[in-house]
Amino acid sequence: MKAYAMIAPNKTGWIEKPKPICGPLDAICRPLALASCTSDVHTVWENALGNRTNLTLGHEGVGEIVEVGNLVKDFKKGDRVLVPAITPDWGSREAQGGYSVHSGGMLGGWKFSNIKDGMFAEFFHVNEADANLALVPEGMDLGVATMLSDMLPTGFHGAELANIGFGDTVCVIGIGPVGLMAVRGASLRGASKIYAVGSRQNCITVAKAYGATDIISYKNGKISEQILKATNGEGVDRVIIAGGTVDTFEEAVKMLKAGGYIGNVNYLGEGDYIKIPRVDWGVGMGHKHIVGGLMFGGRLRVEKLASLVTSGRVDPSLLITHRFKGMDKIEEMLFLMRDKPADLIKPVTIIEW
Amino acid sequence: MKAYAMIAPNKTGWIEKPKPICGPLDAICRPLALASCTSDVHTVWENALGNRTNLTLGHEGVGEIVEVGNLVKDFKKGDRVLVPAITPDWGSREAQGGYSVHSGGMLGGWKFSNIKDGMFAEFFHVNEADANLALVPEGMDLGVATMLSDMLPTGFHGAELANIGFGDTVCVIGIGPVGLMAVRGASLRGASKIYAVGSRQNCITVAKAYGATDIISYKNGKISEQILKATNGEGVDRVIIAGGTVDTFEEAVKMLKAGGYIGNVNYLGEGDYIKIPRVDWGVGMGHKHIVGGLMFGGRLRVEKLASLVTSGRVDPSLLITHRFKGMDKIEEMLFLMRDKPADLIKPVTIIEW
Amino acid sequence: MKAYAMIAPNKTGWIEKPKPICGPLDAICRPLALASCTSDVHTVWENALGNRTNLTLGHEGVGEIVEVGNLVKDFKKGDRVLVPAITPDWGSREAQGGYSVHSGGMLGGWKFSNIKDGMFAEFFHVNEADANLALVPEGMDLGVATMLSDMLPTGFHGAELANIGFGDTVCVIGIGPVGLMAVRGASLRGASKIYAVGSRQNCITVAKAYGATDIISYKNGKISEQILKATNGEGVDRVIIAGGTVDTFEEAVKMLKAGGYIGNVNYLGEGDYIKIPRVDWGVGMGHKHIVGGLMFGGRLRVEKLASLVTSGRVDPSLLITHRFKGMDKIEEMLFLMRDKPADLIKPVTIIEW
Amino acid sequence: MKAYAMIAPNKTGWIEKPKPICGPLDAICRPLALASCTSDVHTVWENALGNRTNLTLGHEGVGEIVEVGNLVKDFKKGDRVLVPAITPDWGSREAQGGYSVHSGGMLGGWKFSNIKDGMFAEFFHVNEADANLALVPEGMDLGVATMLSDMLPTGFHGAELANIGFGDTVCVIGIGPVGLMAVRGASLRGASKIYAVGSRQNCITVAKAYGATDIISYKNGKISEQILKATNGEGVDRVIIAGGTVDTFEEAVKMLKAGGYIGNVNYLGEGDYIKIPRVDWGVGMGHKHIVGGLMFGGRLRVEKLASLVTSGRVDPSLLITHRFKGMDKIEEMLFLMRDKPADLIKPVTIIEW
Repeated sequence: MKAYAMIAPNKTGWIEKPKPICGPLDAICRPLALASCTSDVHTVWENALGNRTNLTLGHEGVGEIVEVGNLVKDFKKGDRVLVPAITPDWGSREAQGGYSVHSGGMLGGWKFSNIKDGMFAEFFHVNEADANLALVPEGMDLGVATMLSDMLPTGFHGAELANIGFGDTVCVIGIGPVGLMAVRGASLRGASKIYAVGSRQNCITVAKAYGATDIISYKNGKISEQILKATNGEGVDRVIIAGGTVDTFEEAVKMLKAGGYIGNVNYLGEGDYIKIPRVDWGVGMGHKHIVGGLMFGGRLRVEKLASLVTSGRVDPSLLITHRFKGMDKIEEMLFLMRDKPADLIKPVTIIEW
Repeated sequence: MKAYAMIAPNKTGWIEKPKPICGPLDAICRPLALASCTSDVHTVWENALGNRTNLTLGHEGVGEIVEVGNLVKDFKKGDRVLVPAITPDWGSREAQGGYSVHSGGMLGGWKFSNIKDGMFAEFFHVNEADANLALVPEGMDLGVATMLSDMLPTGFHGAELANIGFGDTVCVIGIGPVGLMAVRGASLRGASKIYAVGSRQNCITVAKAYGATDIISYKNGKISEQILKATNGEGVDRVIIAGGTVDTFEEAVKMLKAGGYIGNVNYLGEGDYIKIPRVDWGVGMGHKHIVGGLMFGGRLRVEKLASLVTSGRVDPSLLITHRFKGMDKIEEMLFLMRDKPADLIKPVTIIEW
Repeated sequence: MKAYAMIAPNKTGWIEKPKPICGPLDAICRPLALASCTSDVHTVWENALGNRTNLTLGHEGVGEIVEVGNLVKDFKKGDRVLVPAITPDWGSREAQGGYSVHSGGMLGGWKFSNIKDGMFAEFFHVNEADANLALVPEGMDLGVATMLSDMLPTGFHGAELANIGFGDTVCVIGIGPVGLMAVRGASLRGASKIYAVGSRQNCITVAKAYGATDIISYKNGKISEQILKATNGEGVDRVIIAGGTVDTFEEAVKMLKAGGYIGNVNYLGEGDYIKIPRVDWGVGMGHKHIVGGLMFGGRLRVEKLASLVTSGRVDPSLLITHRFKGMDKIEEMLFLMRDKPADLIKPVTIIEW
Repeated sequence: MKAYAMIAPNKTGWIEKPKPICGPLDAICRPLALASCTSDVHTVWENALGNRTNLTLGHEGVGEIVEVGNLVKDFKKGDRVLVPAITPDWGSREAQGGYSVHSGGMLGGWKFSNIKDGMFAEFFHVNEADANLALVPEGMDLGVATMLSDMLPTGFHGAELANIGFGDTVCVIGIGPVGLMAVRGASLRGASKIYAVGSRQNCITVAKAYGATDIISYKNGKISEQILKATNGEGVDRVIIAGGTVDTFEEAVKMLKAGGYIGNVNYLGEGDYIKIPRVDWGVGMGHKHIVGGLMFGGRLRVEKLASLVTSGRVDPSLLITHRFKGMDKIEEMLFLMRDKPADLIKPVTIIEW
């Protein structure tokens, strides 16, 4: 079959690969819709996962099942399915302990385009189909459905990690597609003021539509100083980091109240250390909680998040700025993500068979 | 001074009372806006607090400070203040343990029109002013501000007790003003489907505006059966009880999934026992959590909830169906609450001095 | 093969059954040690599960693997394994949501001697072997290992449900084997005063060894009154219910402080309703949390609990008052559990092949 | 009155100070027992709080009340009281939000020898006496009672921050008096394996008595490597940091499983940044929670912790290696803390009036 792969670092293209084999608990799907992600860019051009060769890219998509294993009970050939980017091994100790995303080792639930081939191919493989797939809700746009693979669950997980309560003030650092979803997630957990940090106009417009009350731009000075000024020196209750670098945490700690939470969902691609400023962190005693985590995957999660879309609580279509048709647009879509033109938030391609 | 009081069971009227005395930590206010509450009705006509005599009624209102104690630092004469219905003793063991609302004993944070005189008077007393008052946000309508005493915090606490997560299905039983706020609270915690149980048309309209996705009427049969039918026998993830009687819990347990939560904010005025159906409760093993709790009060809480109003996350004005002017309308407002005409949700009276 | 079964209500005996079949994820074990449980008594003589016929009894035991399915990775023939009474379907939605014990429906993780045949047979079947078994730690006594199937995890879960913190006062109602484990669990979560309710001398001795500081006897009057007297009317912070009936909850609510927790792990075999006293429950507003839950099972859980035994934090051997040898002692062991002589806490039988 | 003070950086001595004034909510005490703390050493010789002059030292002690304010209800002259090192302002927003320790600003609950004069004087002042003091339990040794000011609550808070559950493996880094209390706290929360990191023999002996199962020495190589080796590369579930420097966090992150918790209670006196290793932290996605916090103070807390001593769950007397008599031994006790001889864990001095 044909697959669009990272052939080597900095080099991508179409290659020929054998069709994946379906184990007894698994499913084989062909893609109905696909999206490219900044993570794909990290993988290919920033060496984030190391020297991979002939690794099929892609972890955001919607599929149609073409085959299921003989132990699969809830899905059958022809079903149209939501496919989470994270597909854990549910029997693992880590899953039993509440961290399915780290099944088999840290980040081990992330399989597509990491441990195994991704979705940018004629066919892709899904482990533990009953536990990791969900039916596409009737009437859901396939582009929107694609946002349920990674963008929505990652952004919303940022809001969960930040432990938001009614009336909390929140700063969301970064308003790319994940940050925008974090803004909506924070709003849906009951935040009052939401300071969104970003500067691109199209993103700002969507951030406001999702619930941002104030926009902060990197271009106007240190964001911690802007936040402290805006809050009379008090700082915010919660911070979600959805962009930036290892240095962003210093800003986050500085703008955070004692007792506050920082939830990171940004993939940190470079740098040896995240640096936590000692004095601003209360010389170790300020109860400023810091945690970062990969999105949760699996069936229940994607079903619950999909229900937020169907009940109208969140409209991921605002993220989709570019729509293509056909498998052959994968490369264009990927390069768009790499080049990030000013009008881009998220591209998708819809595939008809 | 003049005070509108429960003179004796089933009897109310204006009486003469001494102006309250201001302790060193306290404030004396005069009311700028007042609302009557179903609790006042319970107190007077249903003997809920026992045989009280000459007890000034009222625990929902906005005030203007006329005097502060010598240890009060943050407020001064002339300040316009939000006044929570619950004003805890913040140094108590219970407050230190996270349950300020039970300071000095179960429900001990509820002082107005219970342990001491209420707000329906020319002047009323607030204990620990710095810890229990908050400034009225600039530009906030006084009627709306009155909803921050009890309706909004009680309804939102129901959503907290029910422990709602992203994509949960929730049933809110009762859509009087508290239930309506619970609907909005559930929506703001990330519920997807919200089944609101009620039958009055004006309340249904507001419930939908606040985020209810489905309306269930008592008149169409047992609500647990209707919910089970609507959810293919699965039941809901969470239940908020904001109306009904001691018998409502049986319905709630029956419609709830294993592992679910029931959050009660309904004052249960009658009956010896709440009855939990043994088999539906998993013969004691179903992890169906049951808790009921009085709203949290105090300054931080009311400031956070007020910030949800000023940032546009919730619009309590939809609750206010009747607006009066003047102290002399207190009786009319109270009787309205007792008689509950079909078009009533919540009345307020605005007072000018 | 031979199996000791509930032949019909009130009738047990040895019957001939086909050897269980091993699915691809499963294991077949033969028992190395077995214990009888009060639940077996409920099943046979109290009709707790309805009219079952020829259902093999037993859900507490240690096994030796005789066969594994072709998808099993971590275990092999000859391994000696701890077998939890609860063996969930780990891919189910319920497990993904944190309630594996209710996989496939309320209490659905409880399979032995309920949904399928139990362990009182020459061979028994274990679903999802990799996820539900654990190796017997080197040197662990097989009788002690048998206590890890149900007694220890159930009692310790009571301590978890009761949400115990440092210095909390706890009342454990019932000091049969589960209650005794709850006493130890409460002690190991940092309780200070532990009031253990019971009257049998051998149980009292073990309760004190496990950390009970005070013993309360049903025979000296209402236990809630005794607790309130002992605590100067304040009541306790937490209650664990490990014995009694549906009526025990009234006592528990009465002895509990506002803001407290009741954790039930007692199987409630009779009665239509658990009755919660309205006034003592704060007219619905007292924040007295009530929850009951079946023990958590699976591999990680039993490994963690086993590590508490091997590191010396808990010594379950104190529970074992009667030790037998051989499969043929199953009936004697079961009848002992039914008849509950004064010197019984828990019997086990060790089997050599 | 006489007070033992930090006269200037690196200089201490007895000075004359006015007797503190008792506000309406306050108490004035004279010390019955005192202990010196490493924090005093940081303050005087490491400039940790900046250039303070004539600041009375000391924040660990037991007192006898000599005067109470007119609003104090629960205490009277002559009462012997436990005095927490942290005495919050309980009406503050921060206390209302669950972080009394940060009342009025980060670390604002820490008043003794920081915001105001400490306890090393003929008299010392306690704010909000009803909320911040507790009676010395009958029969409690005054040296032991002194450990309830700081050592026990700080160490136990480490165990809380690390969020320990039944059967967790825990590493406690540092086994000075706080670390030793963290070992006992971890044991009392249900840890199984406890790796205690330290090398002094007297501390190792006490660590084992408190529940440490394994001892790791800095002298045998990197502690993260030792832990990983001891756990077959898996790492531990939880880490408590009770000693070391800003660089200790790198070790902690490396030895921690995905999904784990690091709870820091070590005062970090030097260094600009705590450095979190990016890759070991899961490139930002490993769910390795990091938090550090000052101990909780106040009455309820100290009463609960004292009840653990009186019920025999923890014996702080093992910490006390040096006992003095009289106020005049304060200097010797302080210098002992600075010089840390090999046989020192904690010194106290008992004062008779």
